[in-house]
Amino acid sequence: MKQLLIASTSTLHSGAYLDYLLDALKIHFKDIKDIIFIPYARPSGISHDDYTKKAAEAFAKIDIKVTGLHTFKNPAEAIANAKGIFTGGGNTFVLVSALYQYKLLEPLKSAINSGTPYLGTSAGSNICGLNIRTTNDMPIVYPPSFKTLGFVPFNINPHYLDPDTNSTHMGETRETRIKEFHQFNTQPVVGLREGSWLKVNGQSIELKGTLTARIFEYDSEPYEVETGTFLNELK
Amino acid sequence: MKQLLIASTSTLHSGAYLDYLLDALKIHFKDIKDIIFIPYARPSGISHDDYTKKAAEAFAKIDIKVTGLHTFKNPAEAIANAKGIFTGGGNTFVLVSALYQYKLLEPLKSAINSGTPYLGTSAGSNICGLNIRTTNDMPIVYPPSFKTLGFVPFNINPHYLDPDTNSTHMGETRETRIKEFHQFNTQPVVGLREGSWLKVNGQSIELKGTLTARIFEYDSEPYEVETGTFLNELK
Repeated sequence: MKQLLIASTSTLHSGAYLDYLLDALKIHFKDIKDIIFIPYARPSGISHDDYTKKAAEAFAKIDIKVTGLHTFKNPAEAIANAKGIFTGGGNTFVLVSALYQYKLLEPLKSAINSGTPYLGTSAGSNICGLNIRTTNDMPIVYPPSFKTLGFVPFNINPHYLDPDTNSTHMGETRETRIKEFHQFNTQPVVGLREGSWLKVNGQSIELKGTLTARIFEYDSEPYEVETGTFLNELK
Repeated sequence: MKQLLIASTSTLHSGAYLDYLLDALKIHFKDIKDIIFIPYARPSGISHDDYTKKAAEAFAKIDIKVTGLHTFKNPAEAIANAKGIFTGGGNTFVLVSALYQYKLLEPLKSAINSGTPYLGTSAGSNICGLNIRTTNDMPIVYPPSFKTLGFVPFNINPHYLDPDTNSTHMGETRETRIKEFHQFNTQPVVGLREGSWLKVNGQSIELKGTLTARIFEYDSEPYEVETGTFLNELK
């Protein structure tokens, strides 16, 4: 049975890396002593080693050892053997390019569909959707495809931001961008605010955290759902 | 001789569409009575007809007639015969996909290198750079390539925004995104603030408008340049 925790962000403004998620992660990775970290998204260009160290420091607080996927000769095999998997945030295009380069999409699908617990934050959450066409990231590299893992039958927009009504900036708001997405695509988009996450257990998808999420369905007005809402019917 | 006006935005917060550029456009399109408008970027999903109407209303103020490229049976031929060309903003991925679909990159290069005056705003400016890897837009469609026209030997980041030091949002700042770009790419990026434009005359590239622009060079600290600065050496 699939078990995923799909988080908008790794870090809240007031907190340390993963801090606000640690209680949930204790349960999510219950009885698991070590996990594999996928550091490919490289936020601010941080090295794979340094990024893995950062993840390891956070997981040490709940007594879980973290090993970077980049340290394995055969990363597909490492994914297949993993007890748990965490993909950190950063640049979604860089992450997806690496997953294609190392042919890791099928191994990830296979492991996670078989029940290996997964945590994604930001870019690591984007890849749980059908594709990365609703990422906020800059397309700094060209991946062979935008298609991703499809563990949920919709797209994720992490770090969802409400329009700033005081802004004089003329760039598009997030809502405008997602509406433009629906000129060319029909799947729903879940705008996950920082502090929210989706908890996936098999076919069940629950909104967690303290905030509402904004749901964008094709050819409909967007709407808010409360924390605790199940999104099992959204597709 | 190439003649381009590459603007950060079509519209300032306080103004109407293209208003702040009209004086410059009178000179840029001097003695030209009609231009072709490329409406493919479709901001907010506006139709090609409606978008062309919007551009036509603005250009009517300086007595220039606007015809949408979508109305021609042979758009490549229309580009070749154009007296002037304007590509409006919207979604850069949608624009670039259409340019590839209709095989318009070579006709555009050929016409503009032969001296047909060009105006780009936002997405229409992004395509004047080497590629669209520094667009701010959401990748709502997958173009066959990110490579674009290369009328300037660097990339453009339109709607450049300074980091908001009061923000609690954890998404990346524009500066962080461009620094991530330079982990994987070496060409310079010109961060053009809303109200700025580049005036290209042959090999000469001048920053115009009232604001400074922010220049990001590979492996260097970013720096500001004053309006009136020539960027001819930037590559």
